[in-house]
Amino acid sequence: MNNFFFKKENKFLTFKDLHNICNLPYRNNFKNKILDVNNIKDANNSEITFLNSASHLNYAKNSKALACLVSKKFKKYLKKEIIPLISEQPEIDFYKVVNFFYPNSSIDNEFVDNTEIKNKIKKNIFIGKNSLIDKTAEVGNNVKIGNNVIINPYVKIGNGCHIGSNVILRNVFVGDNVVIKSGTLVGQIGFGFKYERKKRFNFPHIGKVIIENNCQIGSLCTIDRGSLTDTVVGEFSSIDNQVQIAHNVKIGSFCVIASQVGIAGSTILGNNVLIGGQAGVSDHLKIGNNVKIGGKSGVVSDIEDNKIVMGYPAKSLREFVNQNRK
Amino acid sequence: MNNFFFKKENKFLTFKDLHNICNLPYRNNFKNKILDVNNIKDANNSEITFLNSASHLNYAKNSKALACLVSKKFKKYLKKEIIPLISEQPEIDFYKVVNFFYPNSSIDNEFVDNTEIKNKIKKNIFIGKNSLIDKTAEVGNNVKIGNNVIINPYVKIGNGCHIGSNVILRNVFVGDNVVIKSGTLVGQIGFGFKYERKKRFNFPHIGKVIIENNCQIGSLCTIDRGSLTDTVVGEFSSIDNQVQIAHNVKIGSFCVIASQVGIAGSTILGNNVLIGGQAGVSDHLKIGNNVKIGGKSGVVSDIEDNKIVMGYPAKSLREFVNQNRK
Amino acid sequence: MNNFFFKKENKFLTFKDLHNICNLPYRNNFKNKILDVNNIKDANNSEITFLNSASHLNYAKNSKALACLVSKKFKKYLKKEIIPLISEQPEIDFYKVVNFFYPNSSIDNEFVDNTEIKNKIKKNIFIGKNSLIDKTAEVGNNVKIGNNVIINPYVKIGNGCHIGSNVILRNVFVGDNVVIKSGTLVGQIGFGFKYERKKRFNFPHIGKVIIENNCQIGSLCTIDRGSLTDTVVGEFSSIDNQVQIAHNVKIGSFCVIASQVGIAGSTILGNNVLIGGQAGVSDHLKIGNNVKIGGKSGVVSDIEDNKIVMGYPAKSLREFVNQNRK
Repeated sequence: MNNFFFKKENKFLTFKDLHNICNLPYRNNFKNKILDVNNIKDANNSEITFLNSASHLNYAKNSKALACLVSKKFKKYLKKEIIPLISEQPEIDFYKVVNFFYPNSSIDNEFVDNTEIKNKIKKNIFIGKNSLIDKTAEVGNNVKIGNNVIINPYVKIGNGCHIGSNVILRNVFVGDNVVIKSGTLVGQIGFGFKYERKKRFNFPHIGKVIIENNCQIGSLCTIDRGSLTDTVVGEFSSIDNQVQIAHNVKIGSFCVIASQVGIAGSTILGNNVLIGGQAGVSDHLKIGNNVKIGGKSGVVSDIEDNKIVMGYPAKSLREFVNQNRK
Repeated sequence: MNNFFFKKENKFLTFKDLHNICNLPYRNNFKNKILDVNNIKDANNSEITFLNSASHLNYAKNSKALACLVSKKFKKYLKKEIIPLISEQPEIDFYKVVNFFYPNSSIDNEFVDNTEIKNKIKKNIFIGKNSLIDKTAEVGNNVKIGNNVIINPYVKIGNGCHIGSNVILRNVFVGDNVVIKSGTLVGQIGFGFKYERKKRFNFPHIGKVIIENNCQIGSLCTIDRGSLTDTVVGEFSSIDNQVQIAHNVKIGSFCVIASQVGIAGSTILGNNVLIGGQAGVSDHLKIGNNVKIGGKSGVVSDIEDNKIVMGYPAKSLREFVNQNRK
Repeated sequence: MNNFFFKKENKFLTFKDLHNICNLPYRNNFKNKILDVNNIKDANNSEITFLNSASHLNYAKNSKALACLVSKKFKKYLKKEIIPLISEQPEIDFYKVVNFFYPNSSIDNEFVDNTEIKNKIKKNIFIGKNSLIDKTAEVGNNVKIGNNVIINPYVKIGNGCHIGSNVILRNVFVGDNVVIKSGTLVGQIGFGFKYERKKRFNFPHIGKVIIENNCQIGSLCTIDRGSLTDTVVGEFSSIDNQVQIAHNVKIGSFCVIASQVGIAGSTILGNNVLIGGQAGVSDHLKIGNNVKIGGKSGVVSDIEDNKIVMGYPAKSLREFVNQNRK
């Protein structure tokens, strides 16, 4: 993975380490060094991944991963070049491996070193009062930043942006000419965990948020960062107040999302998608280009390009109107 | 318009200026000076307005506006005393005119000059820590203001109010004995824009918010200011947490609005309206007096006085119960 | 009641005081001193309570209260050992009595004395910038507190907690290993009041919030404190962003509550309850153990253990699927 915001605590993981961390049988025929973690779709041949969901079986046949934590029943779906690591709890063992590399990735950073901001003063930047900008953050030209803003380490903000008051930015790249209104939180850990034997394992979040050029985000929104990939808001998209964007969501360009909408984890929106107020979109869905989702709809399945849907569960507009006529 | 929070950058606009700004044909037979902008309903005979929506045609016949940006097809609806300015994009041309008068009205102010607060100390005012109160803001007697509060220029707060911590107030008149709980944002720009040739034109927001006497607003609410008119919360109305009130909404007196409700732009509520939790009301609707809207309802059409509605789309309570019995 | 966060302004109330405060007939045959207020279920024999709701009649027969403000029609349901105090407006008279004992309980405190934090520095505590921690608050070992946090008087925080930035804690006991993400507000007054003769009487909130060990609360949530009892989040429960938990709600252990859910006042959830995103649960309901509530559902009646429900109004999953098939 390309983890801009997290430095690896350990450079590599051996199969012996793996045995110690996850309590798996020690496979001493493997001398390879595992260099990083990744999801099964994107992993390369020095990375470890996991497989625990039927919906990822198609990736298993094509994955380039070096090794894969996998349950007994799913083992047969793995490409044979991948080293299978049979586990009773592949997801939790994977959490443990991620924590070996990135021990602080399931908790939000709160330390901001705002002792140096001199490089920012040259560039026509306005910074309000009580704002904390980490010295490692990069801020472009002609940027206006409100009061009580917190900009965490390594955050990047492009040119011409307006960041409202009480905004918190973490683990995010913000493009040019972006407006983020007051009270909005971007880049915190998402909602992902497993209960196992009366303990909670929080899924690590080593991804980031990317807010592309010319986006506009309303007040009091929450945009969580990705776990093993990024959360993305595409260019020129406009988001109203009190919207929730969960981890790994990808929003296309020129989308319009009205107030109090919620988009659950890993869902992908095409371009020019319109979502009315208070609508909800379930997790892991694919919403096509130019789709219109009526206000207060509940979308629970994929939607093809150019469709208009409404209702709960969301159906075509015509069907919704017919059903509610009588 | 009476724009308390915005000073005109330019005192007047000639028809020649209009030609330059909007790229319209220069009508040199008109020597009038245009003194301000307004909506078609309220414009007076020195003001320019625009007409782009069928739902405003009834105003067109009676408007007192001096001139009106209008599409070819709607021109015939204009009262003949009004100078018609034929435009292919009346709304965007109007934005440009508003920006000519009020260049900063589509962005939120972030500069607070809190160097002087001496006049506030005499009046039995409690102000928490880290709070920023602009020296031009007016605060009444016996007011309690929490920590980390931001009160922007020219905001007015009446007597006996309680403003919770982390509250941001902009472009708002707050009456007497008003409670605004922590984390609530009042007076920011609303969600209004047009995409045109891959650019976004943000609708200017030169209106304000009026919160009348004895209102109570919950935590983490957003109340956007009006664009060409005001957003109003009528006296003695009570609003719970996480409620969204969009631009230009007018709420009557003694209304009760439960948590997570959303009211979309320009909707008007009568008095004594009750709205249950998580309900949504679409834009540009008229909800009568004493109306009760059940929790989680989605209101998409006007409601007469004294009705009880529920469901999505909201229907009479009796109908809703009948439909859900079997 | 055991009111940790409120000291009684008056040690006791006589029946003569009662006559003065509530304008009730003076019952000079009673010499008892009333020592406190309570709800009808929990009141003991030195406490006053009120009865104004048919749903509380079963408590009336078994209550141990000394005296009870009650309407004429409900008087007959009271156990005969309880002194009945006939009132035309029992709830409002009760508010007045609560205010006699606890005059500041219907307004949130904003004063934080952060002059002393020395006892906190010894215990491996990280505290971000601009944070205000009252000197009477207790903070455990190994706690991380973000920036701009406000911790009000007498709040207790256990060991190993992580409190995100911009969090406000009032009138709350936080257990060990609790995570509260940024922007969340805990312990403010709930939404309870009566209009009476064009005035609003805010119900006093002398309860608190209890967040048990190992809970996790998302960003921009609101958890209101209890009025005459406590609001409780049981151990190991996990709550996502933008969730609203109203006053007196009790959530069991190992519950999972997704984003933008709202739970209305006094509702009780069992253990292992799962609630999908944007669902709403009405007030005063009882939701059993292991219940699953689908995303966007609207729950308006009690649910037995182990049920799966969906829809609005929520019905069994099977019924919901059948109804939406055709």
